[in-house]
Amino acid sequence: MHRVPYRDIFDSLVRILLNAGFEEQRARLCAKLFADASRDGVYSHGLNRFPLFVSTIRNGIVDIHAAPTLVSGAGSLERWDGNSGPGNLNAYSSMERAIALARRNGVGCVALANTNHWMRGGSYGWQAADAGVAGICWTNTLPNLPPWGASTPRLGNNPLVLAVPRPNGHVVLDMAMSQFSYGALASYRARGELLPVAGGFDAAGELTRVPEAIEESMRPLPIGYWKGSGLALMLDLIAGMLSGGRTTHQIEAKPERETGLSQVFVAIDPSALGQRAIAAGIAEQVIRNLQSVLRPEGEAVQYPGQRVSRIRAENLAKGIPVEPSVWQQVEEMADNA
Amino acid sequence: MHRVPYRDIFDSLVRILLNAGFEEQRARLCAKLFADASRDGVYSHGLNRFPLFVSTIRNGIVDIHAAPTLVSGAGSLERWDGNSGPGNLNAYSSMERAIALARRNGVGCVALANTNHWMRGGSYGWQAADAGVAGICWTNTLPNLPPWGASTPRLGNNPLVLAVPRPNGHVVLDMAMSQFSYGALASYRARGELLPVAGGFDAAGELTRVPEAIEESMRPLPIGYWKGSGLALMLDLIAGMLSGGRTTHQIEAKPERETGLSQVFVAIDPSALGQRAIAAGIAEQVIRNLQSVLRPEGEAVQYPGQRVSRIRAENLAKGIPVEPSVWQQVEEMADNA
Repeated sequence: MHRVPYRDIFDSLVRILLNAGFEEQRARLCAKLFADASRDGVYSHGLNRFPLFVSTIRNGIVDIHAAPTLVSGAGSLERWDGNSGPGNLNAYSSMERAIALARRNGVGCVALANTNHWMRGGSYGWQAADAGVAGICWTNTLPNLPPWGASTPRLGNNPLVLAVPRPNGHVVLDMAMSQFSYGALASYRARGELLPVAGGFDAAGELTRVPEAIEESMRPLPIGYWKGSGLALMLDLIAGMLSGGRTTHQIEAKPERETGLSQVFVAIDPSALGQRAIAAGIAEQVIRNLQSVLRPEGEAVQYPGQRVSRIRAENLAKGIPVEPSVWQQVEEMADNA
Repeated sequence: MHRVPYRDIFDSLVRILLNAGFEEQRARLCAKLFADASRDGVYSHGLNRFPLFVSTIRNGIVDIHAAPTLVSGAGSLERWDGNSGPGNLNAYSSMERAIALARRNGVGCVALANTNHWMRGGSYGWQAADAGVAGICWTNTLPNLPPWGASTPRLGNNPLVLAVPRPNGHVVLDMAMSQFSYGALASYRARGELLPVAGGFDAAGELTRVPEAIEESMRPLPIGYWKGSGLALMLDLIAGMLSGGRTTHQIEAKPERETGLSQVFVAIDPSALGQRAIAAGIAEQVIRNLQSVLRPEGEAVQYPGQRVSRIRAENLAKGIPVEPSVWQQVEEMADNA
């Protein structure tokens, strides 16, 4: 496995973004969000996605100079327009705003329209937890998930993120509505592995564990069959309704043209209840109880975010595993920058 | 099938509750919430659950005179103590409060500790949608769901409700974290049916479609395997942290002793953005698009809440289907009242 130090990846990405015309602070934050995703083991939405991100700058989908602007709002709820800016910068700034609203009002909710792919959704959960608040956020996507019972993709696999701060490692769940995100399918395919459980239907309508069969059919299985299908719909509806932006059926179904997404960012500050210390204690107790349960193999049960914390430490110590072809492509872009 | 008019069920329940000592307004609301659940086809948490509810009054779990009291709060976020009052009245009053906060601040979030089983979670989603706001709420439960990979129930199947108002029928998702709630398992068992897909593990650790095998093993399958397991944990954590109340591992694992639950009620008022009319239009468009997708059998795909609207109309017209033994038990209680 080829590993590259975090700093080298970060520096290369910054150089490429500066060369693309990004303002310096924005280049650094954008590069950090990509490098952090790979550092945390979410390779599909880190370095591996960076070349596609650059191509969406070139094809005009992403406006690198655009930042969100306030459309309307009242108290704890605000609607922002993402103005087709970089999806990860827009999302980061929206969660920052939700956190600021939560510090003032206990809860903050920012709905964002006209934005681009936010890359790794978990980033904004970790961001909230690092700020000591609970975070909930989701995005809609292009149509890539058939509603339960049908075979045409009309829903998005709309990732949902929930995060709770905890001094010994935040608890962060980052999940798509399909049993496996397209990013996860691509990772299994790249490793030549079958999925651990059936992840969707093949072209013939049979359940399958072969990742490329599902990528081709675009018929991934929603989590919990009809339940995940319903949840994907609700997230899209709420995002569209609050942001005033597009819902999934209005989004172009080509990954390289996917734009005009709608997202929701909620932050809840427990210290508004005068109880932040107690809240941290509750998270600690719950996680300890969970970890006291052993799997049949004798390992403790894992909590959401635990694997991220472990991989982060390992990747910072040993370097971040990269796909050689992707890293070569990025290095060439940086050399030409 | 034996059907009973809504009014007869409602009147019997009111009589029983008045006799149990409920104040009149509270008896009527409590009876309405039970009767509405059966009217809407959620029989497991309507009339069928009423005898168990009465037994929790008798055994002291439910204090019929208690109502929630404000503990602390700031702006859009409030913490309330349910004081062991009737779970459905406590939940209704908490969603009312969240809606009032949302009218003022755009978003309202009420965290409720020390409450009892809320019966049908969907009630509070319909309540929010009827008020023209989006509603999100959830409850924790006693430990009845093993974390993914383990066989001991340590998580709750923590129902989650999301609701969006729509003039032609609200969109309301009401789902437990297990593929089938215990209420649903009981209904399949009562009808002598197998589950449509595997719903959990039997005592031997094999996946099964036999509802009673899962009721016995207490090993239902979380939706999406590890994803539903993670989501159940997050909902419990956030509920405990915001309410300051019990988390699942602190709740007694006997249904008739289940108490001290923690719940969260969120309301979001799109009219705070000056856009309620537009929001309603968005819901209509999304649902029409969904319904244009045909299943292989030629029927249109359903949206969450659609079945409820259909069954509600049918049950109001023809009477509500009852389990004869349960209805006889309720009639006897009412006669003795």
